[in-house]
Amino acid sequence: MAEEKSFHMTPEEFRRYGHAAVDWIADYHSRIESFPVLSQVKPEEIRASLPKNPPAQGEPFEAVLKDVEQLILPGVTHWQSPNFFAYFPCNASGPGILGDLLSSGLGVQGMLWSTSPACTELETHVMDWLVGMLGLPDKFLSSSSGGGVIQDTASSAALCALLAGRERSTHCVSNKKGANGRLVAYVSTQTHSSLEKAAMISGIGTDNLRQIEVDEKFAMRPESLARRIEADKQAGLTPCFVCATVGTTSSNAMDPIAEIGKICRERNLWLHVDAAMSGTAMLCPEFRHLQGGVELADSYNFNPHKWMFTNFDCNCFWVADRKALIQTLSILPEYLKNQATESGAVIDYRDWHIQLGRRFRSLKLWFVIRHYGVDGLQHHIREHVRLAQEFAEWVRNDNRFELVAPVPLNLVCFRHKGTDPANQTDSNQTIMDRLNRSGDLFLTHTKLNSKLTLRLCVGQTNTKRRHVERAWRRIQEEANKVAAD
Amino acid sequence: MAEEKSFHMTPEEFRRYGHAAVDWIADYHSRIESFPVLSQVKPEEIRASLPKNPPAQGEPFEAVLKDVEQLILPGVTHWQSPNFFAYFPCNASGPGILGDLLSSGLGVQGMLWSTSPACTELETHVMDWLVGMLGLPDKFLSSSSGGGVIQDTASSAALCALLAGRERSTHCVSNKKGANGRLVAYVSTQTHSSLEKAAMISGIGTDNLRQIEVDEKFAMRPESLARRIEADKQAGLTPCFVCATVGTTSSNAMDPIAEIGKICRERNLWLHVDAAMSGTAMLCPEFRHLQGGVELADSYNFNPHKWMFTNFDCNCFWVADRKALIQTLSILPEYLKNQATESGAVIDYRDWHIQLGRRFRSLKLWFVIRHYGVDGLQHHIREHVRLAQEFAEWVRNDNRFELVAPVPLNLVCFRHKGTDPANQTDSNQTIMDRLNRSGDLFLTHTKLNSKLTLRLCVGQTNTKRRHVERAWRRIQEEANKVAAD
Repeated sequence: MAEEKSFHMTPEEFRRYGHAAVDWIADYHSRIESFPVLSQVKPEEIRASLPKNPPAQGEPFEAVLKDVEQLILPGVTHWQSPNFFAYFPCNASGPGILGDLLSSGLGVQGMLWSTSPACTELETHVMDWLVGMLGLPDKFLSSSSGGGVIQDTASSAALCALLAGRERSTHCVSNKKGANGRLVAYVSTQTHSSLEKAAMISGIGTDNLRQIEVDEKFAMRPESLARRIEADKQAGLTPCFVCATVGTTSSNAMDPIAEIGKICRERNLWLHVDAAMSGTAMLCPEFRHLQGGVELADSYNFNPHKWMFTNFDCNCFWVADRKALIQTLSILPEYLKNQATESGAVIDYRDWHIQLGRRFRSLKLWFVIRHYGVDGLQHHIREHVRLAQEFAEWVRNDNRFELVAPVPLNLVCFRHKGTDPANQTDSNQTIMDRLNRSGDLFLTHTKLNSKLTLRLCVGQTNTKRRHVERAWRRIQEEANKVAAD
Repeated sequence: MAEEKSFHMTPEEFRRYGHAAVDWIADYHSRIESFPVLSQVKPEEIRASLPKNPPAQGEPFEAVLKDVEQLILPGVTHWQSPNFFAYFPCNASGPGILGDLLSSGLGVQGMLWSTSPACTELETHVMDWLVGMLGLPDKFLSSSSGGGVIQDTASSAALCALLAGRERSTHCVSNKKGANGRLVAYVSTQTHSSLEKAAMISGIGTDNLRQIEVDEKFAMRPESLARRIEADKQAGLTPCFVCATVGTTSSNAMDPIAEIGKICRERNLWLHVDAAMSGTAMLCPEFRHLQGGVELADSYNFNPHKWMFTNFDCNCFWVADRKALIQTLSILPEYLKNQATESGAVIDYRDWHIQLGRRFRSLKLWFVIRHYGVDGLQHHIREHVRLAQEFAEWVRNDNRFELVAPVPLNLVCFRHKGTDPANQTDSNQTIMDRLNRSGDLFLTHTKLNSKLTLRLCVGQTNTKRRHVERAWRRIQEEANKVAAD
């Protein structure tokens, strides 16, 4: 019988178009500084350039790639630009991108050990490596009571941690009977909004999420936490979970993990430590004091996709007691049963997160660690921190500006003091809007002590001294203009 | 000042190694039939080949790629093999892989419209295209009250749907006060296990998840559903959500959407339609009768990463009332505020799912649709269905075997009748184990009416007639051996 008609891309076509796609990316990274960092398009502008209906017949790959260049690129905000200082970074690297490409090419589904043993075992292995690389407690090792898993984002990891805490405190009754409206979780006023979302999703409710006050450094006050837990207990509620942060999103504040951990241990609350961006700094021993007490955590997570050159998505999540996590999230329908699972000798990661399906995400992490080596990773993290510290020094020495929060690592929170106390807020907004509209750099804001504050985060893969210098020069220029307005 | 020391891969190195990675994938797909489909390694075998500690110094890319070949590949179960007939497929294609590569290369974070307008707008656009391509109701269009979003998996989509149903029925009180243990959700005994997991996660509880009985075709009995809802109402509970399935995982059963939808509309329950695999078949108008009544759904989802040649992860999820979804999942911290969001003129997809961060996933879907065109996609889906129907016919004509469920599309559930009634189950287990150990093909099982049943699903990108023929020949061979045992 003749070979059937086929519209698939053959391996030889894939080779040709794949080279073209790789070349496009290499070129994109070579000319990335020529684009405005923040996309300047208006709402609906991109859509207006796209055909109303999908094509009936297939189109050549060249046409699609050309449209990426002409139609899509104007609508891209260049997160990989060295002039990107906004939010927290979401950096990437050659080895990360290529590791992910191989994951796509292999196209395996790692929901069970048996559905691709290497997908599970490389993940466990790399997560064990990282325990040592970050100076995390041995209890997070797979050879101990715990273990690590790659999640998509810190939001999902936090949700899993909250669920595990919920189940531990109710002896797994919530999974069966539902939440009862009396479970209480604790964060600080500075904790990432994903915890509020997790409280909503998990059926705990935002009314039962206590936002503990912070000190002058924006770190959770442990004595307030302890007091609030006791008050809730007195009221007949069930405190079950605390999230402490190593480097809050707003200002990179460091919650006192040791003190919070002690409170959690004494009262048997689940302690989750969220080190989404700043966890990467723990590659360098000199920064580990910032998370002193981490050995008291029940779970911990950080995002290599933020600052460790591993493209999105890649969140590393560890638990000290894997049984607690697995019994929270385990389901076992007949069609997924298999001998390896029944032997108990393997990890089935579908029981470690929300999703069932999962791609081979450890490949990109493995590629990154092997490409850079521990020394290479440390070098670049130290360099980013050094540049941010230098920027902070420039701010400190310019009396038109002030630092608004401590600068423990790579995030600088600062503000223009303004020319007139009555419109202080405006001058910062004006400076930021003008900078971002110029396309020269991109930075974002927060509010600290009710004041509009600019944030400059150094974490993009290719950010070098000259980019930070230029950012500061441009900020000064805009401050001059505001003064002259 | 001299350029700083750098361990990063330069664009030129990326070009060279990128070509090597693409070539490796092209070669892998060319020789994929030479590997045993199901990996034959033992637990811990892959880990034992990996170095105990991470490298201090970086290693050459060539060394890493060589290790993928030598250390990783033996632990891979070849989901992309044309001889993969297990579970549901998770197929991929050249354009899908390359679209995903560009997503990695651009490295944008699409949590907000403003953080990369093209990421949001292309997604909305492609999701609108698919409404037409699948014959879904207009209310799912972004120009209507609804809209679509790309999620990672059907598990996450189902969870979001359940949460939206929970909030709608409690007038958003659950988000605030927590779940109250009195909300009830409905599925069938054949619904995917992710719904059980969603009931656990959402604080509804598995005791409040009713598994409605099914008919002889394994489809939900609407009259039982209606009865159960009334009984729960009588008992003072709050029915809030029903999940109906277009193509159950176990046997590809089709729940009667029209009848279930009518029940939901009359009682104001949220109807979620899960068409994870079989939704792709709706590209072909002749199969749309299988989801007649879909216009009554509040939400709908299918996975292009299962059967539509779009590599994992890519789940398409639509809602009829986007406000209901957004108010369920919305959070807005100061550091994410921006003018575009405040104008109300844009979509911020972070309010449409669990996660905050999100990659540019619509690129791969757009690449796939443009490469194949609607005609090309239809051609291959029809071909898969035709091959499965042909296989079913072979089973029907061999009196040693029987079909155990209807074959509406591309999944065949069948069993060996066995030589001795006392060990019927064993002969199917034996046949399956021997086939899978041979590496010639991979298929999995389920239980239907308490009987062990083999499943053969035709959905791999490159599966052609000769692969299905060979599968049947090998199954017959093993049946002969079992008879001779």
